[in-house]
Amino acid sequence: MPHPDALAPLPRSKDDDHGPAAAAQRRELAARAAGIALEHIGGAPVDPRSARGNVENLIGFAQLPLGLAGPLRVDTSAGLREVYVPMATNEGALVASHSRGMRLLAAGGMARSRVLHEGLTQNPMLVFDDAAGAMRAASLVGGLLPAWRERIAQITRHGALTSARTQVIGRRLILRLEFTTGDAIGINMAAQAADLCSRSLAENSGARACYVHGQDVEKRANARALVEGRGRSVVCDATIPRAALLSLTRATPQALVELHRSYAVGFAHLGTQNWLVQSANGLAAVMLACGQDVAYLPECATGFLDLEVDAAGDLYASATLPSLLVGTVGGGSSKGTAAECLAILGCAGPGHANTFAEILAAVVLAGDLSLLAAFSSDEFVAAHERLGRNRPLARGD
Amino acid sequence: MPHPDALAPLPRSKDDDHGPAAAAQRRELAARAAGIALEHIGGAPVDPRSARGNVENLIGFAQLPLGLAGPLRVDTSAGLREVYVPMATNEGALVASHSRGMRLLAAGGMARSRVLHEGLTQNPMLVFDDAAGAMRAASLVGGLLPAWRERIAQITRHGALTSARTQVIGRRLILRLEFTTGDAIGINMAAQAADLCSRSLAENSGARACYVHGQDVEKRANARALVEGRGRSVVCDATIPRAALLSLTRATPQALVELHRSYAVGFAHLGTQNWLVQSANGLAAVMLACGQDVAYLPECATGFLDLEVDAAGDLYASATLPSLLVGTVGGGSSKGTAAECLAILGCAGPGHANTFAEILAAVVLAGDLSLLAAFSSDEFVAAHERLGRNRPLARGD
Amino acid sequence: MPHPDALAPLPRSKDDDHGPAAAAQRRELAARAAGIALEHIGGAPVDPRSARGNVENLIGFAQLPLGLAGPLRVDTSAGLREVYVPMATNEGALVASHSRGMRLLAAGGMARSRVLHEGLTQNPMLVFDDAAGAMRAASLVGGLLPAWRERIAQITRHGALTSARTQVIGRRLILRLEFTTGDAIGINMAAQAADLCSRSLAENSGARACYVHGQDVEKRANARALVEGRGRSVVCDATIPRAALLSLTRATPQALVELHRSYAVGFAHLGTQNWLVQSANGLAAVMLACGQDVAYLPECATGFLDLEVDAAGDLYASATLPSLLVGTVGGGSSKGTAAECLAILGCAGPGHANTFAEILAAVVLAGDLSLLAAFSSDEFVAAHERLGRNRPLARGD
Amino acid sequence: MPHPDALAPLPRSKDDDHGPAAAAQRRELAARAAGIALEHIGGAPVDPRSARGNVENLIGFAQLPLGLAGPLRVDTSAGLREVYVPMATNEGALVASHSRGMRLLAAGGMARSRVLHEGLTQNPMLVFDDAAGAMRAASLVGGLLPAWRERIAQITRHGALTSARTQVIGRRLILRLEFTTGDAIGINMAAQAADLCSRSLAENSGARACYVHGQDVEKRANARALVEGRGRSVVCDATIPRAALLSLTRATPQALVELHRSYAVGFAHLGTQNWLVQSANGLAAVMLACGQDVAYLPECATGFLDLEVDAAGDLYASATLPSLLVGTVGGGSSKGTAAECLAILGCAGPGHANTFAEILAAVVLAGDLSLLAAFSSDEFVAAHERLGRNRPLARGD
Repeated sequence: MPHPDALAPLPRSKDDDHGPAAAAQRRELAARAAGIALEHIGGAPVDPRSARGNVENLIGFAQLPLGLAGPLRVDTSAGLREVYVPMATNEGALVASHSRGMRLLAAGGMARSRVLHEGLTQNPMLVFDDAAGAMRAASLVGGLLPAWRERIAQITRHGALTSARTQVIGRRLILRLEFTTGDAIGINMAAQAADLCSRSLAENSGARACYVHGQDVEKRANARALVEGRGRSVVCDATIPRAALLSLTRATPQALVELHRSYAVGFAHLGTQNWLVQSANGLAAVMLACGQDVAYLPECATGFLDLEVDAAGDLYASATLPSLLVGTVGGGSSKGTAAECLAILGCAGPGHANTFAEILAAVVLAGDLSLLAAFSSDEFVAAHERLGRNRPLARGD
Repeated sequence: MPHPDALAPLPRSKDDDHGPAAAAQRRELAARAAGIALEHIGGAPVDPRSARGNVENLIGFAQLPLGLAGPLRVDTSAGLREVYVPMATNEGALVASHSRGMRLLAAGGMARSRVLHEGLTQNPMLVFDDAAGAMRAASLVGGLLPAWRERIAQITRHGALTSARTQVIGRRLILRLEFTTGDAIGINMAAQAADLCSRSLAENSGARACYVHGQDVEKRANARALVEGRGRSVVCDATIPRAALLSLTRATPQALVELHRSYAVGFAHLGTQNWLVQSANGLAAVMLACGQDVAYLPECATGFLDLEVDAAGDLYASATLPSLLVGTVGGGSSKGTAAECLAILGCAGPGHANTFAEILAAVVLAGDLSLLAAFSSDEFVAAHERLGRNRPLARGD
Repeated sequence: MPHPDALAPLPRSKDDDHGPAAAAQRRELAARAAGIALEHIGGAPVDPRSARGNVENLIGFAQLPLGLAGPLRVDTSAGLREVYVPMATNEGALVASHSRGMRLLAAGGMARSRVLHEGLTQNPMLVFDDAAGAMRAASLVGGLLPAWRERIAQITRHGALTSARTQVIGRRLILRLEFTTGDAIGINMAAQAADLCSRSLAENSGARACYVHGQDVEKRANARALVEGRGRSVVCDATIPRAALLSLTRATPQALVELHRSYAVGFAHLGTQNWLVQSANGLAAVMLACGQDVAYLPECATGFLDLEVDAAGDLYASATLPSLLVGTVGGGSSKGTAAECLAILGCAGPGHANTFAEILAAVVLAGDLSLLAAFSSDEFVAAHERLGRNRPLARGD
Repeated sequence: MPHPDALAPLPRSKDDDHGPAAAAQRRELAARAAGIALEHIGGAPVDPRSARGNVENLIGFAQLPLGLAGPLRVDTSAGLREVYVPMATNEGALVASHSRGMRLLAAGGMARSRVLHEGLTQNPMLVFDDAAGAMRAASLVGGLLPAWRERIAQITRHGALTSARTQVIGRRLILRLEFTTGDAIGINMAAQAADLCSRSLAENSGARACYVHGQDVEKRANARALVEGRGRSVVCDATIPRAALLSLTRATPQALVELHRSYAVGFAHLGTQNWLVQSANGLAAVMLACGQDVAYLPECATGFLDLEVDAAGDLYASATLPSLLVGTVGGGSSKGTAAECLAILGCAGPGHANTFAEILAAVVLAGDLSLLAAFSSDEFVAAHERLGRNRPLARGD
């Protein structure tokens, strides 16, 4: 069983922490957790032919520094998990900051993370001669739905059409289809299915034009993503004991809540759909490590952080991420270093997409707590000085 | 001179295009353009110690498939450039789609791209006892500005404080500082300078609290980014001859304009700040290749696409990207495969950040034109079938 | 039958158009259309006691200038209507501008307007100890729904609970209830029903707190209103013959479409949920005249305008208004001048709320077409000069 | 001197509070404060000819119930004011709710309100052949500015062009002009001046098209209004003693802060630019009473509410309203009941626009505190039952 209840703390070398020996020692720990060797992470070249279907005009591989955060303890829909978290990044202090956040989560026992809803939407748009045409087409959808479901069941075993709704805007009709997609993001299956449904509706309703990707929600932050979610919607929460927060970060629960209130005013003023602190950092790093499509980051990083001092004086914190578009099957997830990183998380292959999404939410919560605490304690500049990110300042970074 | 006016088309191998030989052949072409060998892209391990300052708990390197798009012809503030564009991605068809878009741009001669404005903002927040306190502090900023500029000049040669504005929200004061940052993103320099300015203002005004990162605009899509921009604001445009559009994509200028109008209705309905089609795809792939911090993607991918049929019946197109946060100095840009990729673009090191940003805008325009044309011509499903992305459908992708 | 198919054009007096005689002559026409005398509009004082339940600390009545636009020809769910439209305003040129727009609509035969959806939402919020508590509560809603519907049927004959959905944000649960409300806005009925449902859920789920108005969507523009609508969602469209547009406004269909494209770019840049041109003007004026609660204006004015040149070279135009919160029963609608104005529209009392909403959408479409045409023809300054709005310029208006 | 430091509480009649005698008694108090008779409020017909320039096709006057809230004590830029506040509305409980809020403000001594910034923007849009054309035009603005200022000074004594900025979006240029406008909203002056400036720029830069109202910010809620403000930006704050809050509303400061936090989560989720509770209610009622253009409500109602428990356990509260578009000169402000209502506030005519805006912000703060306290104390349904708004429930309201 590759995921025991307790993982060793990650060793650091005082003298040469970025040297091959220190890296190998940590890699070895991760390999034991993964239950497989981590050859490609260790430098073994990836077979270029494995990239077929993932890239054209291949010239080689980009190499990104890969660090481990953790251990992270999180209660998921698949049970309690304790994992090291692989993060690919060039931003100094990012792994350390998330590691500290994971210690905060563990101090209260664990984080708790659950998928709230799963559904990949596609939103084809049909154009008619007038609004009456769009309204007539909308009235046909209910009757066509059973046939659509049947056809889609014939082309894929892994996804299903769960609902079809409509919205009329002038003479345009948005057909809002929602799919389950198994353990893949499933965008290609969904696009193919949306093509099928929208063409069928267009033929039955005399549409002038039919755009499969008509309302393009893909890979962009948007208000609808916050209200309805897309992909996997996840909530993660935890209670951080006051004493642990104080000793690990020198911040108090009350100070964090105060700081967060000012953040909320700032976000309101900005007009953003990302009410988290550094979700983009943690998500980008883990998604890159695990072969995810990081172009989904603007959608994924959308969500809410909430903090409160509870009756015992401890800190209650939650992160809500309504639109995680990630998968443990398909894309680059089964190849090279990505497959190794997913194995480190115990999330490689079918059956693990929900757990992976739940772990991502816990990573975000860890990162946000740690960074807010750093800001609260004025540690920000200092931490980067020590870890090197600020040293190139004189050189123009 | 590594950037000749005309680059060879990228060769493809019918039988084994992802095999080592085909990859090496293209890599060789890129190396000639770069003027340096591309060892790490070709598989030579990166020295782990080079990652010091970029990551903690290093265990190795993530390897991402790296393809070449192009050639791209674009008129920049540094003159006409013709470049191959390195893109790291797992999304099949993405490189091919951008390559086709670059052919569209070249068909009209070239794209034209220019930085409109440069300025990295930091927005510390000060909290006072009441609104009167915040208003008094706001009135002090003009007087303190010269001293702030002087102090900042002492801590960095590469950046400068260009303006300081204020906004009062209740008893909170947002101090909106704008910096030039040379060829780096410059976030650490700017954070340090913002710390200096906001502490000075806090001391002079009796602030109750001072949060350096109080209004956190970093790495999140937001409405203010669209209005004011952040980092480098770039506009890129081009005219695509009708005949070239038709022969390369089977779409007409009018069909693209029609489709784009439906997209605009969809975006309005969504409430998004990203009015481009696939900016997240192209930006993520080039940023990853070039050692940029891809966590900035949600900010960078914000912007506008505009299309029009001109008097001659050709297609005029523009992409406006108000918030490109990229650099050719600092972060991961000078190391390993990232340095090699920047060299391929002729943008490695000091003096190239504006050109790099201008090239990125051209990449976005290329990608958007190509994808809209694909959607317009119903080529979408077909293209992915051929290139492999849709083939895993039966396997649940 | 008070609503004949053809109404006389409104007479104007060259010499003294604001004199009592001209006003009385038009009022007489309106009275004939209304089928009742228009005493209060003509100056008869309203009984102060009739304001009981509508205002406290009454000191009298505010008097607002009331003009007539029209006739407006619009095909509604209740059949073809031709009506004069009462508008209360202080903005010179507003009534004239809408009247011209109504002539444009009539030139193509009529506008067509239909309610797409009806549903007043209430969004109580429950707070729990943790996210698990919120998720458990969400799972109870389906089981409680039948009992809620039964209880609500006991307290009102005019409304019904149509759906109950949930959204978890951290440890908060938003309970999204949707009601039909007959011909009233129904906000008080809905608030009382929401109180009942949310208290029931709170009791069954051990909520820590329960806020009936927890997610306050009332009377504010918001992104959700655009996606989901609230109150009555209406679409109205029309085709304006090119010749009529040209002769009435000196603008061509193509010029209007061009101008509208620039508007759309501007709106995208602004981050607005109101993509109409002057919906706030027309809605405010008719709502004021008809005793509606004009504080709903920010919600009501949300929506889309769309324009296109059709194959015949004529102008197709549509206005989509997803959130009209209006009623012909309750509030101030049955009293004094408001009842008289609703009678002029043939919309007084039960059975007319949908028609009233459909007429409002047509008023918005008329106003938008007329103003865009004015801007397109450079008539803006001139029109106001002639009608007097710009004359006070030298006096500081 | 019509505005003494202490006004009498408003008398209420137990038996017949909406009868003519009770109304007259309160009107008499208001008349003493106004220093003029309130004839038209009392029922005297307004001269229809006075509506010339404000409406076309006049048929009479709409009559809206007018109540008095207050007294309101507020420290303004013109000194301490104590005023009754006229509110025109059909929403029962609204005046009472605001009156209670004003008692809360007075309990802490007074509210403090100040204009932060004044500037009416106009945003003409110019269209060029390409982005280079737009950039060239942007570079000309600085040189043309002095001539524009001179010309504008010749056409108005009441306004001035304070700044001109530019934004390039593809081949479009937004010219952002800001004006001071004296005590009027000044929209017509500004439109005329914007016409002058934009035509001048168009002629000097070879623009293809020039739309004076190209980026139409008028009368719509938008993200830019929140960041930059428009018209008069005002902040108002107050401290409410804990004991007064408890005795007047049965709510504690802590309970209000808790409730407000849930509101903030709800607003974030909605995607709104109105973070106040019932600003639309209070603003609409006073604007209607005072002859303002209520179509500006969606812009005016934008803003922030902030609450905090201070060190003494009292409630600190602020309302920030960045975009108040109101005037005491021009429009309907000098006529009939509007002039009488502005006189009640001591704000009739030149020299009073800032004070009027500051009073409006205090009204909003009063309304928000009172309504939040009502929600907090579960008084909401009860208050409406007592005052009558909920009684028509059985009748379908």
